[in-house]
Formats: sequence, structure tokens, C-alpha cells
Amino acid sequence: TKIIILPGDGIGPEVTREAVACLDLLSDHFDLGFRFEEHPFGGAAIDACGDPLPESTLKACRNADAIFLGAVGGPKWDRAEKRPEAGLLGLRSALGLFANLRPARVIEGLEDLSPLKAKVAAGADVLVVRELTGGLYFGARTDEGEVATDLCTYSREEVERIAHVAFREAGRRGGKVTSVDKANVLATSKLWRRVVEDVAAQYPDVALDHMYVDAAAMALVAAPGRFDVILTENLFGDILSDQLSVIGGSIGLLGSASRGEDGPMMFEPIHGSAPDIAGLDIANPAGAIASAAMLLELGLGLPEQAAMLNNALEQVLVDGVRTADLGGDARCSGFGAQVRERLE
Amino acid sequence: TKIIILPGDGIGPEVTREAVACLDLLSDHFDLGFRFEEHPFGGAAIDACGDPLPESTLKACRNADAIFLGAVGGPKWDRAEKRPEAGLLGLRSALGLFANLRPARVIEGLEDLSPLKAKVAAGADVLVVRELTGGLYFGARTDEGEVATDLCTYSREEVERIAHVAFREAGRRGGKVTSVDKANVLATSKLWRRVVEDVAAQYPDVALDHMYVDAAAMALVAAPGRFDVILTENLFGDILSDQLSVIGGSIGLLGSASRGEDGPMMFEPIHGSAPDIAGLDIANPAGAIASAAMLLELGLGLPEQAAMLNNALEQVLVDGVRTADLGGDARCSGFGAQVRERLE
Ligand SMILES: CC(C)[C@H](C(=O)O)[C@@H](O)C(=O)O
Ligand SMILES: CC(C)[C@H](C(=O)O)[C@@H](O)C(=O)O
Repeated sequence: TKIIILPGDGIGPEVTREAVACLDLLSDHFDLGFRFEEHPFGGAAIDACGDPLPESTLKACRNADAIFLGAVGGPKWDRAEKRPEAGLLGLRSALGLFANLRPARVIEGLEDLSPLKAKVAAGADVLVVRELTGGLYFGARTDEGEVATDLCTYSREEVERIAHVAFREAGRRGGKVTSVDKANVLATSKLWRRVVEDVAAQYPDVALDHMYVDAAAMALVAAPGRFDVILTENLFGDILSDQLSVIGGSIGLLGSASRGEDGPMMFEPIHGSAPDIAGLDIANPAGAIASAAMLLELGLGLPEQAAMLNNALEQVLVDGVRTADLGGDARCSGFGAQVRERLE
Repeated sequence: TKIIILPGDGIGPEVTREAVACLDLLSDHFDLGFRFEEHPFGGAAIDACGDPLPESTLKACRNADAIFLGAVGGPKWDRAEKRPEAGLLGLRSALGLFANLRPARVIEGLEDLSPLKAKVAAGADVLVVRELTGGLYFGARTDEGEVATDLCTYSREEVERIAHVAFREAGRRGGKVTSVDKANVLATSKLWRRVVEDVAAQYPDVALDHMYVDAAAMALVAAPGRFDVILTENLFGDILSDQLSVIGGSIGLLGSASRGEDGPMMFEPIHGSAPDIAGLDIANPAGAIASAAMLLELGLGLPEQAAMLNNALEQVLVDGVRTADLGGDARCSGFGAQVRERLE
């Protein structure tokens, strides 16, 4: 089983190290035969070979069983001709990873970590299903110095396939999809809403409602418990999933999975590269470890090992081990070691 | 002094009634000579004359000293050829109202209303300066059934003029502008960032930082106290200002002002038309009354009367009068009457 590792930039390498060590431990113990292969990606790849997504990295990803990504980006490359983010968008697009799954919840017993009042946060458990290869992210752009444009495009087919993912996920969870758009203004949102309605007809057991993105942003703070699955387009998904991520206490806790029609899936923490704390061994590896658990379950079909890793991770948090983002002084490496201790 | 009143749809008319009654009381008492002129707008205007922004309404607005708007929209017109929202966008555009000011804060003593923990919410006081006549809202659209597109456009000039508004406001407040964009992906955001940097050079006393919109959505929940003025483009401003609005307890509490280079300004609560509770006399008129206070201060240059109205409004809230959105059973009309009682 070949797992491609893209540590990337900033805190990417250090959180990746902890996650991979967890996977390695499980592989050893259960004789799963994981082989890890590290490749340059993002800003690190720009520095190494002038390209955020080198051909060799892309080729390795295509032939992988699963891909693990740390984080990309940083001010160092702000003025670069090709930015690290272009590598990430290029990889998502090249592998056809159109569906991005971003779960967030408030862990029982950890309500104190949330910026929300306990009664608002309690029980919140939301999955954002974000379209990942369309919309404003991939439309034509122009920048003539004095005027710039970005084009947002969606086709029926693009909306259909992501809607199916959301309805299927909802069927396995709370049975409810909230589709988020701005159909009172945007043409792409009107198409989005029409197509989502059509797809919904094929899932009579899943309830569907629609919300405008501004109202959704509000409801995610005021009443996150009302949501089960949020289905939305690329940019809205970027914003709402980040916003949602803090309800559990820190964006540092959350993992994500990206999938295409077939081919390898990609897993990454949803936090960024946090260049200001890179290399200090104070980043929170929980999001990376949660991503590793998703890799086990969704990427490799190993739900049992995934549950073990998730339990060990949750235990460490419940036991009060806290990295700096949660006001503690646990180290990134120390946190990872604690997870592995509980795994053993 | 001619004030054009556009009650609009849903709860628009009932909250407008309370706000206008407050203005009327002040006009009587201080002999300000306000004349109110009501005009059809939004869905109500579609029903009355087939057009959400009738020519006569637009003409009246052009000749006004200030414009007050209730709310527009509702499912009733979801399938209409021209939607109520088109009237709002048309009016903003026709009057050149490019700057939308949306203040939100946690009122001292009312921290219990916020979904955020008291220590997170305490002292938060943010002004969103939203560009209102550009971006995805006003670019070309196509919808050919199977594929739809929306174009996002910004010019240097459009960014410059809204940036000046933000820096001037920051100079009168906390002295800090946070410009929000998605410059790691969008061409319009790269232009936005360049131009904002250029304008910032003219305001050496105001600090500037930049945030990506996803990070900003997160920080507005986790640490709203870190912001003073948020400067952002049309769609991001729509999302972030709605999200921000709940930190004080309810979107129903907040007013907004929209201005152009010259000409009359427009004032409206930032909540929507809430068709589900329209006509029940349970809507919160506080946002409309706060908008009326902004009308007095910014639209008519009457800061003293504005302060009186704001104080009366705050007093009613501090005294514990709560409409349904805040868990109480005060009526819309009753809340308005209480504000006027304290004004007398
Ligand atoms: C780094 C950036 C391009 C990316 C995105 O906007 O998709 C990130 O914010 C994310 O959410 O994965
Ligand atoms: C009604 C709608 C078109 C409008 C907008 O998106 O601008 C509203 O949400 C607002 O924020 O004023």
C-alpha cells in the first residue's frame, strides 16, 4: 500500500511527521505494509525545482493508494510568479478531486474549548461537502493592471456529481442536506439550486433545504446544531468550513478528505501553513492525525484502525493535553507521542 | 427635509413603521420638518406595478434628502421573471451607493444575548465597510440551462474609493483596517490588495493588515475583538457582515448605511424580510430603529438626535425588553412604543 506524503510548507512538515508516525505504528502492528513516499510540493517545491507541483510529484500521486498533504503557502512566495496555492489547485484539478468532505463537531466534554456558549455548541456535528474543482477557483481570469476579472462557472454535471456525494453522506448521517447558494443574485447559484432539487428527488429519505450563503454564515454561529450536511460550491465551502471549524475550539483539530470519481483520495488538515509558528514544534497535529484517520477509513477501507486512531486522539484531548492554539503548552511532537502511546 | 420610505416586503413594513414613528416624534419635538413619502419597492412593487424598482420610486429617491428601506424579497417571487432583489441591486447601482457601512458590537451588559462566550464577545466593536456596486453582484451573467456563469470584476477606481471610506472611518474609530480578500486565488483580490496598499500610504496613522476571507470568517467567531474596520468586496462583505451580526445576539439589532460620492444616502436594517413571521407583529424593530439613528447622524447631520434615539433604543434593550428573536415575547409595535416612551 503506497501512501504519498506531501509535507508542504510552514507547519506542514511537523504535523505530517506526527500523523505519518501514527500510520506507521498501525501498519507495523496490523501488518498493513504501508509504504510512505515523500515528494516536494507547494512552496517547498518552488524552492527545490521552481514548480509548486513538479511532474514527478503528480505522477507519484496518480499511482498512489492514498495521498497525505500537510499544508501549503506562506508570505515568502507572495510575489512568486507561480504560488504554492497553484500547486494545490493544480493537484485537485489533475486528480479530479471534485468533492471535499470537511466534518466538524463539538466533542462531548470539550465544550469548554468552543468560543460558543455551551448551550449553542452542544451536540453540533456538521459535514461540509464542498465542490472543489469548479466555480471562481477555476474560471478564466484577467488582470490588466487597472481592471481584473474572475469568472465563476458551473455546469449541470458538476453540480450533479457533488450533490450525489452530499445526499449519500446525509443518508449515512442525520438524513438532512442544506444546500447553500446565493440564488437571489447569482446565475450559477440558480443553476445550482435547480440541479440540487433534481438530484434530491432520487433521495426520498433525505430532507433538503436551501439557504443563502449570508444566512448560512449567520446560522453556523447562532445555531450550528441545526445542520447535518452542508452542500455548497467551492468558494462558499472554503469560507463556511473555515468558519465552522472553530466551533470545536480550533481549526487545528480538523481533517478533511477529497475524492474524485475514482483514483486515489487526498487527505489534509484544514488549517493553513501558519508560517509564523513553523518549526517551533508548537503546532497542533490533531488535524493531521484526524486526516490520517480519514485516510484509513475512506482511503484504504480500514474503518477499525481508523476508529482506534480517532479514539486515541480524542482521549488525548479529553485528558487535557493542549497545544498553543488551545491555550496549552503541549508540543506538536509531544502531542503526537501521546496519541501513539494510547494507540499501543 | 424629504425622507423617502420604502417599506418593501415581509416584515419590512412593520419594522419601518416603528422606525418612522421615532423619526416623526423627533421631528415634531425639535421642529425638524421631516416629510415622509412612501413608495412601492421590491416584491410589493412587482405586485403593484410589475417592476421591483418603478421609475417613480427611483425618481423620488434621487430627489430625497435620505432614503429608508425596510426589507425586500420572499419565496412568493422566487419564480418571478424580475425578483425583488433586482430592485435593491438596481437602486444601489442607480444611486451609485458604492459604500455600505455595517457596524456591529456587543452592547455592554448584553453579553448574555451573544451566542459567543462572554470572554470572547466582550468589547467586540466592528465596522464592516462593504463595496456595494461591483464584483460578482454586477458582472455579466449567462445561464444556458446546462451551464451558468457569473463574472466578478473590479477596477482600480472602484477599489480606491471604497478603501478611502474605510481608512477615513478607521481614523475616527480604532485606527485599524483589516482588508479581506482571497488574493491567493483570485485576480480581483490581487488587484484589491495592491490598490488597498496604495491607498493605505495616504493614511499613515491607520494600521492595515490583510486576511484571506476564510481566515477572516474564522477569526470573526474566535476573536471578534481583534477587528476594528473590515474593508472588503461585495460578496465577502455580504457574508461576513451577516456572520458578524449575530455576535450581539441577533441580526435584528443592526442597522446599515449606504453612500455614494454625493446624493442621498440609504439606510436599512441588515436583516431580511423574514416572510415566515411577516404581519405577526413579532419582528424586532431594533435594526430599523438603529438605521433611523444612522439616518439622523449620517444622512441629515443631526448627531444629537441620533444619540438620543440610540440611547433610548439601548435603554429598552438593557431594561430587558426582548422580541422573539431574542427569546422574549415583546411585540414589534410594543418595542417601538417603549423606545418612543424613553425618547419623550
Ligand atoms: C490554500 C487555499 C488555496 C485553499 C482553498 O481556498 O481552497 C485553502 O484555503 C483550503 O480551504 O483548502
Ligand atoms: C437581498 C440581497 C440581494 C442583499 C445582498 O446580498 O446584498 C442582502 O443580503 C444584503 O446584504 O443587503
